[in-house]
Amino acid sequence: MRSFAGRDILSLKDFERNEFFRVFEIAEKLEPIARNRKNTDLLKEKTLVTAFYQPSTRTRLAHEAAMIRLGGQVTGFSDAKNTRAGDFYLESIKDTVKMLEFYGDMIVMRHFQQGAPHEAAKWASIPVINGGDGWGEHPTQVLTDLYTVLREKGRIDGLKWLAVGDMRMRTMHSLGYALTQFDCPITFVSPPDMSLTDEFQDELKDFSLDYKIADHVEEAIADADVILVEPVVQPDYTKSRDERDADSDVGMTPDNYKITRELLSTKAKSDAILLHSLPRMDEIPVDVDITRWSRYWQEAFNGVVMRMALLALISGKME
Amino acid sequence: MRSFAGRDILSLKDFERNEFFRVFEIAEKLEPIARNRKNTDLLKEKTLVTAFYQPSTRTRLAHEAAMIRLGGQVTGFSDAKNTRAGDFYLESIKDTVKMLEFYGDMIVMRHFQQGAPHEAAKWASIPVINGGDGWGEHPTQVLTDLYTVLREKGRIDGLKWLAVGDMRMRTMHSLGYALTQFDCPITFVSPPDMSLTDEFQDELKDFSLDYKIADHVEEAIADADVILVEPVVQPDYTKSRDERDADSDVGMTPDNYKITRELLSTKAKSDAILLHSLPRMDEIPVDVDITRWSRYWQEAFNGVVMRMALLALISGKME
Amino acid sequence: MRSFAGRDILSLKDFERNEFFRVFEIAEKLEPIARNRKNTDLLKEKTLVTAFYQPSTRTRLAHEAAMIRLGGQVTGFSDAKNTRAGDFYLESIKDTVKMLEFYGDMIVMRHFQQGAPHEAAKWASIPVINGGDGWGEHPTQVLTDLYTVLREKGRIDGLKWLAVGDMRMRTMHSLGYALTQFDCPITFVSPPDMSLTDEFQDELKDFSLDYKIADHVEEAIADADVILVEPVVQPDYTKSRDERDADSDVGMTPDNYKITRELLSTKAKSDAILLHSLPRMDEIPVDVDITRWSRYWQEAFNGVVMRMALLALISGKME
Repeated sequence: MRSFAGRDILSLKDFERNEFFRVFEIAEKLEPIARNRKNTDLLKEKTLVTAFYQPSTRTRLAHEAAMIRLGGQVTGFSDAKNTRAGDFYLESIKDTVKMLEFYGDMIVMRHFQQGAPHEAAKWASIPVINGGDGWGEHPTQVLTDLYTVLREKGRIDGLKWLAVGDMRMRTMHSLGYALTQFDCPITFVSPPDMSLTDEFQDELKDFSLDYKIADHVEEAIADADVILVEPVVQPDYTKSRDERDADSDVGMTPDNYKITRELLSTKAKSDAILLHSLPRMDEIPVDVDITRWSRYWQEAFNGVVMRMALLALISGKME
Repeated sequence: MRSFAGRDILSLKDFERNEFFRVFEIAEKLEPIARNRKNTDLLKEKTLVTAFYQPSTRTRLAHEAAMIRLGGQVTGFSDAKNTRAGDFYLESIKDTVKMLEFYGDMIVMRHFQQGAPHEAAKWASIPVINGGDGWGEHPTQVLTDLYTVLREKGRIDGLKWLAVGDMRMRTMHSLGYALTQFDCPITFVSPPDMSLTDEFQDELKDFSLDYKIADHVEEAIADADVILVEPVVQPDYTKSRDERDADSDVGMTPDNYKITRELLSTKAKSDAILLHSLPRMDEIPVDVDITRWSRYWQEAFNGVVMRMALLALISGKME
Repeated sequence: MRSFAGRDILSLKDFERNEFFRVFEIAEKLEPIARNRKNTDLLKEKTLVTAFYQPSTRTRLAHEAAMIRLGGQVTGFSDAKNTRAGDFYLESIKDTVKMLEFYGDMIVMRHFQQGAPHEAAKWASIPVINGGDGWGEHPTQVLTDLYTVLREKGRIDGLKWLAVGDMRMRTMHSLGYALTQFDCPITFVSPPDMSLTDEFQDELKDFSLDYKIADHVEEAIADADVILVEPVVQPDYTKSRDERDADSDVGMTPDNYKITRELLSTKAKSDAILLHSLPRMDEIPVDVDITRWSRYWQEAFNGVVMRMALLALISGKME
């Protein structure tokens, strides 16, 4: 197995089966630090540089919190895209990265352009983590999802997945690539205009992933051990949440893509688990939160643990 | 007295008399750290999460500085409201907080909606500090004010207050609730359209607060030991400060609500103290800054000390 | 020599020759910390307050990274100007600084108004670093440039400079003042509407700086040991970088102010060094990056080292 020390985390297409398990093993070792809420000093000599060209709070803060729990420091920027007059908007990735590499020891980058973190990694002398790149990938999120499955179900292989959402999105790409390394049949459910691209399907076939496509969550939920949900509708940004809530008393998400308490109670396996990286619209109504299926808060906790594992590994502080 | 460990700081209506004094006692113990300008390590294992949905620099930075002086770490966001496309704008307080609680050990929240920090506290497994909620309350500011009075006058009971400003604002609410626990008569002076709400007056009467309402600062200044001032006019945001200053050579704040050097010299007690949480418009002209009455810089310093005390108490590191 | 402990870094007009060398000496001592990528604890009790009224990422992050490498903490704000509703926009420098001084132990300020950091220094009881003030000065950048020359050429005196760019800009002012303390003849090249102001030329003459003015880089490049370049064109902010690149395949910067690979190969000294504080437009095309002349990445690295030296000196931790 290749060493993680100094390595970029750009894509899950890069990942081999035993590398997944190494990451999960380290995460499990570091989990008590997060659980006990005590910052340690494993990375006390290290600095993480956050380079967020797109607004992101969950991914950015999970990385920051992970770094802090390990005793490291954080610097960087979180609003480059919104700052039209900002330096970064007009600068090439190369020029920006040739500067950022002197400000710390690892970079986590989110960018609106697919491939930007890969370009950054080409020029940086320090490891680059892909925090989400356009339609590309979101590897740290999917590592979090898989780790949550492992912790909640005790295993990954042999479980059936149902994924609901916009199949053109980066999370789905990382998920597809990841599952090619496991024995996990998956059914994808999305609105017709958000279906898997032909190109991506070709890739999945090349990797012999056992996948199906369906139109309605009901078609696949009975078999599913893991149900992963993402929004299929976008909020109306011209209205506040309150205005939107007041506008109508019916949900916006069509039933085909919605996981309700009733659906779970009548159709789902009693030990299936439900994941969502959040934020959500109404595709999972809030009354599901306290049911036996919901695991998205554990997933949020694991989001910090997973980033701790990755930062410890690529900094060479754990192997 | 209830323990402060793990407790939320949401409202001063919650506070009992002996709890105020416990907070002041801890503040006095920690003050030398701030005065000597040396970061310590009392909270070195802890992280504060800043959740600012409304722009605030003074409150946010005072909490950050306090955490840093105690050796703790800070992460979070400071601009959610301005970020229309931001995750937080469309997410319920519950969903946001169920994530934030994994990023640190205490949350300080400012929100444009009254009651939002209370909602957050309902869901969070870690303590929540109200950094100002809409028209609601601003408890940490008023604790700072009271501590400043204690430090500058040697006592709180038996002092007469004059409060000038917009009486519908959150600071005034916290002040009213706080003074119900002390022997402090107060006169409120505000423009007619900014007077105490009936609802709030009913509450103050229920608590038997000894308060009066007046139209002009001159009516109450002669008796006042403590003069607390807030702006009654809003700046013209379409103009820069220089443009506004150039526009007219007369002040914008009517004399009724203005504390001038001349007024202080001719009417105020010579040992009265003048508080302002800043920023100010022209309700206290700058030539007052060097007079015997001004204590707003001490108040700014105490703002850090008070947050140190609160963070040390709710984290359970001091009792 | 005056002590640096507690001193403001506002202008290079303040600097004496032996003070420059003291700063460079400290920088050289601290450089291994940055090179070895290990945060230390020299400033572990100290906090830097960043007060950026103008967007700046390079200057802000270089100061933050320097503070972190030395074990210190950072708090502050980075977007005051863009936040119209922000407290700072309507507050006087005095009021802001009388608050900021309680949040940390040193302030670095960038401001759109010339002289703002000087005003801040007048009121602050802690040292203030000028991170760029309007058309005024940018002392830490030029100290970085001079240190880069010293490291790359082994000396400063006796080298000939060519400076290209907008001569009304703050960096050029600091550069002019700095060179009056060394034996460094300089030629300034700029578009006619961006030439040295008469006022500034009078100052340079008072200091007996040996300077010339030219219209085209070709007139001065043959003699130059140090070529310092800044943009002379502003980007079209209504277009993304990609759109701008696509718009035309010819560069925007006129040949007079452009340092191409061909020009360097045919006209420049083979051991001349090329500096640019970045970001760049097309005044230095990317194919120059790998040539023998380019030193702007070293300059970026030295930007962190120089801020480490300044922070260590003004905090009194090194002498």
